[in-house]
Amino acid sequence: MTMPKKSLQPTMDLVRAGVNRHLAGFLAEAIAKTPHAPGFTPLFDDLAEFVLRPGKRIRPLIYLAAARFFQPDNVWLAPSRLACAGSLELLHAFILIHDDIIDRSELRRGEPSLHKLLERRTSTFSDRQRIGSNLALVMGDVLFAMGQRCLLESGEPKAAQQLSRLLGYIIETGVGEASDIVFGTRDVGKIDLDDIELMYLQKTTRYTIEAPLVLAAILGDATEEQLKELAVIAEPAGLAFQIQNDLEEFRKFEVSDEAISSDLLEGKKTCLMRTAFEMLNETDQGILQLCLNGIQPSEATASKVRELVIKSGATLRLQNRVETLCSRSLQNVCESSFDASIREGLEGIITMLCQITKPVSHEVAV
Amino acid sequence: MTMPKKSLQPTMDLVRAGVNRHLAGFLAEAIAKTPHAPGFTPLFDDLAEFVLRPGKRIRPLIYLAAARFFQPDNVWLAPSRLACAGSLELLHAFILIHDDIIDRSELRRGEPSLHKLLERRTSTFSDRQRIGSNLALVMGDVLFAMGQRCLLESGEPKAAQQLSRLLGYIIETGVGEASDIVFGTRDVGKIDLDDIELMYLQKTTRYTIEAPLVLAAILGDATEEQLKELAVIAEPAGLAFQIQNDLEEFRKFEVSDEAISSDLLEGKKTCLMRTAFEMLNETDQGILQLCLNGIQPSEATASKVRELVIKSGATLRLQNRVETLCSRSLQNVCESSFDASIREGLEGIITMLCQITKPVSHEVAV
Repeated sequence: MTMPKKSLQPTMDLVRAGVNRHLAGFLAEAIAKTPHAPGFTPLFDDLAEFVLRPGKRIRPLIYLAAARFFQPDNVWLAPSRLACAGSLELLHAFILIHDDIIDRSELRRGEPSLHKLLERRTSTFSDRQRIGSNLALVMGDVLFAMGQRCLLESGEPKAAQQLSRLLGYIIETGVGEASDIVFGTRDVGKIDLDDIELMYLQKTTRYTIEAPLVLAAILGDATEEQLKELAVIAEPAGLAFQIQNDLEEFRKFEVSDEAISSDLLEGKKTCLMRTAFEMLNETDQGILQLCLNGIQPSEATASKVRELVIKSGATLRLQNRVETLCSRSLQNVCESSFDASIREGLEGIITMLCQITKPVSHEVAV
Repeated sequence: MTMPKKSLQPTMDLVRAGVNRHLAGFLAEAIAKTPHAPGFTPLFDDLAEFVLRPGKRIRPLIYLAAARFFQPDNVWLAPSRLACAGSLELLHAFILIHDDIIDRSELRRGEPSLHKLLERRTSTFSDRQRIGSNLALVMGDVLFAMGQRCLLESGEPKAAQQLSRLLGYIIETGVGEASDIVFGTRDVGKIDLDDIELMYLQKTTRYTIEAPLVLAAILGDATEEQLKELAVIAEPAGLAFQIQNDLEEFRKFEVSDEAISSDLLEGKKTCLMRTAFEMLNETDQGILQLCLNGIQPSEATASKVRELVIKSGATLRLQNRVETLCSRSLQNVCESSFDASIREGLEGIITMLCQITKPVSHEVAV
């Protein structure tokens, strides 16, 4: 049975609440069974608070929704399934923690990033930033290990096979993250849009969309061929999701100087910047390149970038691209070899992804 | 059949060579099957070179030796067993990579640390150090995931159960590392020796000694009670191993200013420093405290620390403690409930640990 499209929102809220309860319980237990001195407790408190902040929970939602049609039974919010779904969120949080250190992001989900939280816990007078980053690096590693344990001990019948597959996606995420760092040091004009799109796929979208679908399909004994079909379905939607994210970030910055994204601060080579570059005349290209070259740009360079991006018309082009990509994903669902009920379910998930970029209100997700 | 003690060295060399061959093959394959742009290859080359540097391979050696007597059969250097042993080395290398970032260590096993290697790969002019650290952070995460995949896909019959247990040790390692960072910001006189010893156990010795023994015992269907006995056996030897490491580092620094350890540079609160503090008079205690307070001490403070440690007589006291701890481990082997053949094997491993602190020559371990 697939989810009726009209009542998607209440179902999603229910599922999110279930995932959040499970995550809170898992973390409390995992922390309690890890030997630590009493003085260490605040570090764990920060870690748990960070993980449990309201978020979209896209990865668990996709896994649970897909598991429901790949292996139809009455256990779709059973503890083993919630544990497996929750492990995806734990691994996502670990990736965010390390990502925030790398990007020197001070905020995550509207609150201080973990390294900023931990910085406040140190009693040292000098080098506080470094101590905060070092502690967050290690606590990220701890969360990585906890996330895997959560999956491995979930009780899902194919947990080991799922984890093995998931680790492949995490390796790719690391490669994507490294590409992002390397691109940050290069001129925007010298990087192909294709390479940026590959980086997006590796860094974010495969573990976000393809991985939960594939893990759910493993439950339903999908063939290797079918797992490849899922990749073909997930890829355009994932890319759309990530480009949409670029556009949202830029829209916030369009209305407020305060909302400058860490991508811009770090001179990240996003699809938006690359597309704007391509659409500008030669003089403006040179100026954009200069503005994006320096790490930690000034207010002046940031507003110049804004001006040039608007002038280029890149946002409209990318908005169209997002729509094309979403349609392609849906098309790929239709053309896949899955049963009608699975195709209907996949269509629901892809449609949900195209709607989910709206921020979640506090009351819903706590 | 346990290893005859007299021929231990040739056996160890053989095993090390087997582990190294397996690691090289695994890494080459894991890298080949991870999609990456050609420009990314040098980063993987650096990672592989880092992992494959000659080292003692203590963790794989302990696992293989213990697996031989916990589950006696003729496959003790079979591929599945070597893969499981190798995964311990991969995870160790991941821990070293992150540890070196945290400690800003420039060298590892006599060559540049990974973040220093990767720094050389960046074409950026500014912020090279940060780019190098960020890349090493991510490549460390990649190696963490590869290490777990190596175990999970090893073909060992209880790989999932082994990994689940191993993840517990890795979580503890993170907690130990975080304690080490926190202690670095506190006065040496305000930390109990017991807390430093617990930090040693968590940060290093449990995953180094207890984990390989426990993973091997899982192969042989050991009971939960027996796994606890292994912890009691491993703990004193592990602590001895780590204190011995403090002493070795200090001995090098005693003969050469160049050999100043990163522990000292980072104001780490080692057992040696804490013991020296305890054994000094009040005036000297105050001076030692001051010298250890600053992060990145000057040459003058470093040589003052050396002078005070020598004056305190702490090295002799700790040398005695190492011997006491080794004897206690052997005693715990005798008093354990294992069969005579297993006890004999454990005795061999503990004895090996007390001898293995000598550096490995290049020819042996390549």
